[in-house]
Amino acid sequence: MTSLDTAHCLRVALDATVDAGPIALEHFRRPIAVADKRKDGRYDPVTEADRGIETFHPSPSARGIPGPRHRGRGARQRGQQRDLLGDRSIDGTRAFISGMPTWGILLGLVAEGRPLVGVMHQPFTGETWYAAAGSGARLRVRGHEQPLRCRADASLGDAVLYSTHPSMFGEPLGARYEALATRCRLQRWGGDCYAFALVAQGGIDLMVDAGLAPYDILPLVPIIEEAGGTVTDLEGRVPLAGGTVIAAANAAVHAEALSIMSGSESRR
Amino acid sequence: MTSLDTAHCLRVALDATVDAGPIALEHFRRPIAVADKRKDGRYDPVTEADRGIETFHPSPSARGIPGPRHRGRGARQRGQQRDLLGDRSIDGTRAFISGMPTWGILLGLVAEGRPLVGVMHQPFTGETWYAAAGSGARLRVRGHEQPLRCRADASLGDAVLYSTHPSMFGEPLGARYEALATRCRLQRWGGDCYAFALVAQGGIDLMVDAGLAPYDILPLVPIIEEAGGTVTDLEGRVPLAGGTVIAAANAAVHAEALSIMSGSESRR
Repeated sequence: MTSLDTAHCLRVALDATVDAGPIALEHFRRPIAVADKRKDGRYDPVTEADRGIETFHPSPSARGIPGPRHRGRGARQRGQQRDLLGDRSIDGTRAFISGMPTWGILLGLVAEGRPLVGVMHQPFTGETWYAAAGSGARLRVRGHEQPLRCRADASLGDAVLYSTHPSMFGEPLGARYEALATRCRLQRWGGDCYAFALVAQGGIDLMVDAGLAPYDILPLVPIIEEAGGTVTDLEGRVPLAGGTVIAAANAAVHAEALSIMSGSESRR
Repeated sequence: MTSLDTAHCLRVALDATVDAGPIALEHFRRPIAVADKRKDGRYDPVTEADRGIETFHPSPSARGIPGPRHRGRGARQRGQQRDLLGDRSIDGTRAFISGMPTWGILLGLVAEGRPLVGVMHQPFTGETWYAAAGSGARLRVRGHEQPLRCRADASLGDAVLYSTHPSMFGEPLGARYEALATRCRLQRWGGDCYAFALVAQGGIDLMVDAGLAPYDILPLVPIIEEAGGTVTDLEGRVPLAGGTVIAAANAAVHAEALSIMSGSESRR
């Protein structure tokens, strides 16, 4: 177990995340410079708002949180045992530049391989989802607080399944996702981090995304787990390296979805 | 030309639409009864919130707006020359039951085959898009007003293209939509009525949806047109019967998208 004061870390992370909201809103729905950050031909926008948030300090590490310095969106996880992730980068840049409020500012703390604290802030809707391991998950909506609970009685057959965009899945993941979708009540695209947050809220029962960076998902893990859900990679482990991630409202839905997405069902 | 007082009609429509917001929010993100309204096997949810809004009066027609009575989501357009459409039904029920804020409450007025007044209200985000023909389009966000302007200088090659879900397109529309997407800078799913509203706001340059009812689209037509955009069906006409609809930030982008979606480009 860790000796970290997770309640203190959560307060610091909440302040740091919510404080970055106005920076993002300065650019949201305004003409902004959009750079293409990838060289491989796939369009991957990064905006002035991203950079403004990444360079915005004071650093949480200067405020009593131990471990290596926090890191920006572009930084790689290098196997440190204790780290701040996300650093208030915008997740969902494509939604951001479109004006859709499904992006968020994420910040999380991982210690000894375990996501302990997570915050997601959506400054346009005025929502903040947050959790610290062992203390439950909560949503603050413009001053009103409420506990977060996944839909504990969800089954795969009545599940609402989300993902962000079909292009994120190569094969065989794309075909497996299609097979999963046919088993669910409703499938929708356009999720971004907002759909992960709605798993914790109980509206969505299953969110499967691929190609995630660690900082895209680790801040959301404590929020979903503390609300009763399960979040893993395709090996059924904590998604410390990102990649393909399955977040489910309960362990039963997660087990069925993992079986389909990992291909183990078809090999039985 | 019509002798309608469109400014008065807009005020009535704004009141009627915004007044329905709290009814929808009573059910949003709460466990709700969801009925399946179709018999053909496709899942098409209708919620208590829908019915609450549909049965919520006072009727706008009792408040000085001429023409036949307003109509609910389930009603069919019967060719009347002057009508209230939408009647504060929720557009985007799938988003609604998922907890996503991309649904809206729509109300519009069509007179002599021309959409004259349109309102879209999103009570969770606190946004109201509205327009009356000849008077410009505006967005009110939690008390702040701003004019709406489509991106006048958008070209197809740098356009952000949205739609709601691939399943709405049969063939050959699906293949045409894919061809259109490869010509645009960015394609995203998960739009609902919110993506049409963002065409008027300038974040999205092109929104193409299929299978729309008249009350799904006609309230949005004055909002997009007054912001400088173009909205038609596949024949290039006012989408009085709904169906497949192309909404674009300007006439040039619209013409290119219409050419591809109508199949006339491939026949050239």
